[in-house]
Amino acid sequence: MSVHPLEEILHPKSIAIAGASGSGRGGGFITPLQELGFRGDIYPVNPKYNEIMGMKAYARISDIPGPVDFVISSIPSTGILDLIDDCVKKGVKGVHLFTARFSETGRKDAVELEQELLRRAQAGGVRLIGPNCMGVYYPEEGIAFNDGMPKESGNVGLASQSGQVVGEIVGFAAQRGVRFSKAISYGNALDFNECDYLDYFAQDPQTDVILLYIEGVREGRRFVSSLRKAAAVKPVVILKGGRGEAGTRATASHTASMAGSQQLWHSMVRQAGAISVGDIEDLVDIAVGFYFMPLITGRRTAVAGGSGGSSVQAADQCEEAGLNVIPLPQDIRDELKAQGNPIWDWIGNPADFSISMGDHNASNSIMKMMAKHPDFDLIIMFVHGPWRRSSQPFSLDRHMEFYNLRELGGKPILAVFGDRPRGSGKEAEWYKEISAQIQERLIEAKFPVYPNVGRAARVANKIIGYYERKPK
Amino acid sequence: MSVHPLEEILHPKSIAIAGASGSGRGGGFITPLQELGFRGDIYPVNPKYNEIMGMKAYARISDIPGPVDFVISSIPSTGILDLIDDCVKKGVKGVHLFTARFSETGRKDAVELEQELLRRAQAGGVRLIGPNCMGVYYPEEGIAFNDGMPKESGNVGLASQSGQVVGEIVGFAAQRGVRFSKAISYGNALDFNECDYLDYFAQDPQTDVILLYIEGVREGRRFVSSLRKAAAVKPVVILKGGRGEAGTRATASHTASMAGSQQLWHSMVRQAGAISVGDIEDLVDIAVGFYFMPLITGRRTAVAGGSGGSSVQAADQCEEAGLNVIPLPQDIRDELKAQGNPIWDWIGNPADFSISMGDHNASNSIMKMMAKHPDFDLIIMFVHGPWRRSSQPFSLDRHMEFYNLRELGGKPILAVFGDRPRGSGKEAEWYKEISAQIQERLIEAKFPVYPNVGRAARVANKIIGYYERKPK
Repeated sequence: MSVHPLEEILHPKSIAIAGASGSGRGGGFITPLQELGFRGDIYPVNPKYNEIMGMKAYARISDIPGPVDFVISSIPSTGILDLIDDCVKKGVKGVHLFTARFSETGRKDAVELEQELLRRAQAGGVRLIGPNCMGVYYPEEGIAFNDGMPKESGNVGLASQSGQVVGEIVGFAAQRGVRFSKAISYGNALDFNECDYLDYFAQDPQTDVILLYIEGVREGRRFVSSLRKAAAVKPVVILKGGRGEAGTRATASHTASMAGSQQLWHSMVRQAGAISVGDIEDLVDIAVGFYFMPLITGRRTAVAGGSGGSSVQAADQCEEAGLNVIPLPQDIRDELKAQGNPIWDWIGNPADFSISMGDHNASNSIMKMMAKHPDFDLIIMFVHGPWRRSSQPFSLDRHMEFYNLRELGGKPILAVFGDRPRGSGKEAEWYKEISAQIQERLIEAKFPVYPNVGRAARVANKIIGYYERKPK
Repeated sequence: MSVHPLEEILHPKSIAIAGASGSGRGGGFITPLQELGFRGDIYPVNPKYNEIMGMKAYARISDIPGPVDFVISSIPSTGILDLIDDCVKKGVKGVHLFTARFSETGRKDAVELEQELLRRAQAGGVRLIGPNCMGVYYPEEGIAFNDGMPKESGNVGLASQSGQVVGEIVGFAAQRGVRFSKAISYGNALDFNECDYLDYFAQDPQTDVILLYIEGVREGRRFVSSLRKAAAVKPVVILKGGRGEAGTRATASHTASMAGSQQLWHSMVRQAGAISVGDIEDLVDIAVGFYFMPLITGRRTAVAGGSGGSSVQAADQCEEAGLNVIPLPQDIRDELKAQGNPIWDWIGNPADFSISMGDHNASNSIMKMMAKHPDFDLIIMFVHGPWRRSSQPFSLDRHMEFYNLRELGGKPILAVFGDRPRGSGKEAEWYKEISAQIQERLIEAKFPVYPNVGRAARVANKIIGYYERKPK
């Protein structure tokens, strides 16, 4: 198998930043490389400076003594043709153009400039990411474009027309424990387009889940075919920007994309075997599910650990999401009766643990029976904040033991643990701090964690649907 | 007009807590009263103790020397008939029964006990809140049932069958700046039921917005009539627990309610002129909107301040929520051109401020024109976190000035400001801290704040729908 052309530019031994400066976005591309420990050479390029951030600055790419594999262009669009010519001269393989004000302005001269840029790059053998984008995040190679992007790699790949969207997806997913193989913001899709990125991630051995944010499709027929092929080998989750009339107008001025009708789009994605979502929150929620969960084989759902009103609403939200909250199996009831559990005839599914009135052993044994029982395909597990008013001092280890159901039945388990309303004063501070620790422990234990049951249930349903539609 | 029977028990000069103890839930009803500064007498009642939390404890209600207006019962259900008899003897007006294990257990003897309890209370002239509930939060009277409930009053009233749901709604709403006139958890609705609470809040001059969490309706015909009357005078937002099959089973064991079909429910609520929601998040979001916003008279929406991908998605989400994101009016464009604004022909609605490339004056003047323009009925305004990489030190006052659009056109403005993904290290800490301050400033300036545009747009649409359906 031949190497994908994107792969050829994603392992640079040196990166030059054209338009670098100590402040502003140009310098902003240097610090993330340093922070992630990029191992190659970094060359600031700007004729106005001799030195930038302690490094020698060069007037032109072709002035750099050593070889340059990759260039990040942060210069104004007026100088872009000169820069590309210089890159061709230097033998640069790939250029990421943060540079904007091309076709997205809707202006004739800017559209023509963009086309001339492409023509010269193609003639000179230089591949382009962008223009009008944030470029590449590839933690294994030490490449990032924002400060604070995680250093660790994971198996989720992301391609997005919007760099802001990459920042949000990577950031929100990171808070939930998800890490990325690579994430690429590709803006106006002038050279590589959505089909290239999709094909790339489909064949990429570092990527097991593909996320896409797309504003417009440049090659419609090819996209459907690429999508079908990708979704047959790994989950693909797509967020489409520009679904309606106003959104279509907005995509034109953002990345100069032509958007399509929403209904058609959703059904096309579904038929191709991929997952279509409506916003970033959904996209990240589903990524969290695929990242941490084994295959879900059915819809029979146990809901454990809620109390009172939350159990009632959990049942509603699971059913409305398409899950099947079956009654508590009779043999569990029989076993509870045999154990002398006083709520054996009263407890159900959802198992409302407020009715055990603080008898944690009783609650825990019910959760364990649910986790082991063959009638349940998955568990939605409420995780509580630290118990208040207990006679014993709070122990995080003991608290977390209660939720140690992973090994029992090997079932997919979605944990529900949310920001609780904060009160005020010292106890509220303590509660908040311990809650953050509980969240961290859940992620360390590889639970997908959702702030409420509705979101957990909708994710489970989407993931089950993916496996149902996937060619066997 | 006669005084509502609930009003007669909600201003107690003294409260006795039956089943009080230093630890456990019984004592837990004492500290919130102290914290909120309840001005009357508090009497712990428990035959096992001489003193509880520094106060003299009484063996029975009738042992208390002074008059007792209100009793919180935290004793087991086995002693409840004796307690009620004692309350009748003492001339108690109202009893809140935290005491549970009645009809919600599904057991025959418990159902009978509950009925006997009601019979004796009615015969003795004692009114009941509950059983199986958390009772009353009434900040003006210094009454609360959880630690950390806000001391300040507001104009939102809440009745809920679940005490946990009250805690969540009051807590989440408080974080968004919303305060309550009173919130009552009423559990099994044995004496006062949902119709009584609804009638009460409809006539209550301290309440301008009514929130309800209901698991089952005891008096169907009366409820529809009460709902119609209430919704005609103030907004009523209802969350129904137990909408589906499993939820119906769960309500039975939670508050012994019979639930109805979901579709019927939603259309009944809508026809009565009230707002039906699917979860607590929606309920709180809408409460925030009514709390802070003037009347919204139409759907023509300006979206200002987003950038790139977020503007595109904002347009989609507004349209999908039912709002009308109209093109930028030509006279705004003309004015921008006259001002020499370089993006006059390129900017649209949503106004994507990333294309002004950091020219904050240009962005700000567009926002102001939108706020003043008569073609827009409402504004959805993105609020940014602190700008990074600015040459000047960050000033919170200067940052907030940018969003000072309230006085310009008097239009309803929904602010979108969310938890941003957190990075790591010192800058992330700073960013988080400043973000919390921005959030507080927005609330102080009486903005309804939503973490994303989808939620803001859905709220606007629901509120507009309420005013459209409201009898003129």
